[in-house]
Amino acid sequence: MPTPSGHTDAIRASRVIGTKVYNPAGEEIGTVEDVMLEKTANDIMFAVISFGGFLGIGEKYHAIPWSLLDFDPNRGGYTVPYSTEQLKAAPAYSIDELTVDDGRAAREASFNYWRVDPYWQ
Amino acid sequence: MPTPSGHTDAIRASRVIGTKVYNPAGEEIGTVEDVMLEKTANDIMFAVISFGGFLGIGEKYHAIPWSLLDFDPNRGGYTVPYSTEQLKAAPAYSIDELTVDDGRAAREASFNYWRVDPYWQ
Repeated sequence: MPTPSGHTDAIRASRVIGTKVYNPAGEEIGTVEDVMLEKTANDIMFAVISFGGFLGIGEKYHAIPWSLLDFDPNRGGYTVPYSTEQLKAAPAYSIDELTVDDGRAAREASFNYWRVDPYWQ
Repeated sequence: MPTPSGHTDAIRASRVIGTKVYNPAGEEIGTVEDVMLEKTANDIMFAVISFGGFLGIGEKYHAIPWSLLDFDPNRGGYTVPYSTEQLKAAPAYSIDELTVDDGRAAREASFNYWRVDPYWQ
């Protein structure tokens, strides 16, 4: 139950991982595979989302800005404000491509696609 | 291998969870149990660290500011710049106390103890 001070925004990373992701129509479109953190700053870089179910391209993931995931308690999952078509056309990468030192280009291409400025250095 | 652009700071939350924590003397003092995230902002709130091994108080955890965990590739774990005495005297809470809506006091007491200003709202 929220207190008057009202801080209700804490969530454990282990609870986020594995959570389902829905489109605005309420269709299940994927799963949060992981959350990418910045080692030396306090920034959450992005959520790593699998949409393999309909993309059919194997172990490829999307980097979705954390702030675009909206938790819906009724669905027990996150809603992203994108259509299936937008998601299908989005850049998709392997986990390694998203994490290795030279993966910056992949992350930047994703944020550019989603029209969100990267907030990390 | 780092590229010239040099961005090497991405780490997956799933890799952080379960990582050992050491004191500056290299003694293993605990484990990263979880990472607390801010739902609506891009902030990592803190790491949830278990020090049960020597605290002996069961399922109690410490909220350590993320920025104070220094990854040491040689040890394969994080070093925190605190003595055993400092850790023993630090506030310790159950996971519920750290996460429920009215857990703000516990988190603020921890950051006050570690002399780090909370950077979230």
